[in-house]
Amino acid sequence: MKIGILGLGLIGGSLGFDLRSHGHYVLGVSRRLSTCETAISMGCVDEAGLDMNLLAMVDVVFICTPIGLIVPKFSELISYVSTSCIITDVGSVKTPVVQGIAPHWQNFIGGHPMAGTADSGVEAAQGNLFVDRPYVLTPTATTPKSVIEVMEGLVSQLGSKIYHCSPQAHDLAVSWISHLPVMVSSSLIAACMGESDRQVLELAQNLASSGFRDTSRVGGGNPELGLMMAQYNRQALLASLQQYRHQIDETINAIEQEDWPALAEKLSFTQQVRPLFTE
Amino acid sequence: MKIGILGLGLIGGSLGFDLRSHGHYVLGVSRRLSTCETAISMGCVDEAGLDMNLLAMVDVVFICTPIGLIVPKFSELISYVSTSCIITDVGSVKTPVVQGIAPHWQNFIGGHPMAGTADSGVEAAQGNLFVDRPYVLTPTATTPKSVIEVMEGLVSQLGSKIYHCSPQAHDLAVSWISHLPVMVSSSLIAACMGESDRQVLELAQNLASSGFRDTSRVGGGNPELGLMMAQYNRQALLASLQQYRHQIDETINAIEQEDWPALAEKLSFTQQVRPLFTE
Repeated sequence: MKIGILGLGLIGGSLGFDLRSHGHYVLGVSRRLSTCETAISMGCVDEAGLDMNLLAMVDVVFICTPIGLIVPKFSELISYVSTSCIITDVGSVKTPVVQGIAPHWQNFIGGHPMAGTADSGVEAAQGNLFVDRPYVLTPTATTPKSVIEVMEGLVSQLGSKIYHCSPQAHDLAVSWISHLPVMVSSSLIAACMGESDRQVLELAQNLASSGFRDTSRVGGGNPELGLMMAQYNRQALLASLQQYRHQIDETINAIEQEDWPALAEKLSFTQQVRPLFTE
Repeated sequence: MKIGILGLGLIGGSLGFDLRSHGHYVLGVSRRLSTCETAISMGCVDEAGLDMNLLAMVDVVFICTPIGLIVPKFSELISYVSTSCIITDVGSVKTPVVQGIAPHWQNFIGGHPMAGTADSGVEAAQGNLFVDRPYVLTPTATTPKSVIEVMEGLVSQLGSKIYHCSPQAHDLAVSWISHLPVMVSSSLIAACMGESDRQVLELAQNLASSGFRDTSRVGGGNPELGLMMAQYNRQALLASLQQYRHQIDETINAIEQEDWPALAEKLSFTQQVRPLFTE
């Protein structure tokens, strides 16, 4: 197939690698010429350029821009491609993207490849980034079966585990396991920094070890990503945060009341169920 | 020196290893004969037995029992040792221990070696467990200088980084970086499990990745340890939890009000300050 990649960063570049290795002809479009040159020389794409006209003949386009640009870039793109072209995206929140695109393009399906590295940019692109990682597809009631099948074929070639769900279910799920942890973890760091006794704060910083390091890791990550999660997945994240606050309140109450059986039960429960998420 | 170790578990056994390797003569006391035999055969101690009379002639005793037994075991111990004997403990909360012992024993100093493994029991004991790890000493206004000096000498031989502070400062510091993270992390797991849509919950469990794994790790740990932290460090932990809840409330408010500059500032701040704890 001829496949277009609109936005050549870590995800777009890595998709290009794998799709080329399966014999597809990959055309990339970026806003910067230097990115196009890097992508070609790294082997992420067969051709690349600044002009969307390059994508006129492709069968599938992956929109791999930052989430805020997905719908605007889609609106530009559709004057260049044929109506039979399948358009998909890789945004990490799906409801606003699907609502912004699906009514205007029959052959659209939202997607979310859940892989990454600490680095970003096309220079960080790598082959096999998606192997054994989840790739969520979010078809709606009106998504043609043929579109789902083509995407399933491509995602299989990436070696990913395919999941299907509604955009709303996707956004709730990632709120729980990805966006809520960022707010929980950032709030831990902020709370510790609120210690008013300077000697205690310095001691805490010196004594912090693997437990603090792990619990605070995602709260010390890229603030732009955290902000993006909150802006685009606002409703789901608020619902998760409210439930979470309720759990914190229950914990405080148990300790205040010295209700040790209640606290023991909660800690035993979370020890018991954590493997459902991690194994 | 002749050194007694009362309670032969991971910490007691590992202390024995290192102290013997520096030429001290180490005598262990445990409640179980099989533990004594294991400790001797592993080389953690020179002698071991069930009877505290074994410790009659020692210069220093490390009380290495679970925290709830430290004060009761001290009360038994003092009818066996000479008044010149230095007594210390390794409990992970210091205020209740120091308050329970210091008024009754001049040559007492509280301590907390902050090292461990996922395993417990004397079988898990190992040499050099404390190298480059913090070892907090919590002298009070009445602790003799000579006692502090002897303990500093021994802790130096373990290769630990020595910190001195009041029992209260220690308990506040470990509340921030050790006990609060357990409650934060356990509440994250509990909140996710509260998702009422079964399909979303299963999807969340399938999609959870390194971010969730790290943030939830200490909340999935030994519930007895978490309970012990709350019981013995109740006041400091409650203060930490209240501050933490305030941070969660601020986060919820910023997202509800779409106050993106406030959220961006918070996430940037926590990214910026996290290395104070982890580097």
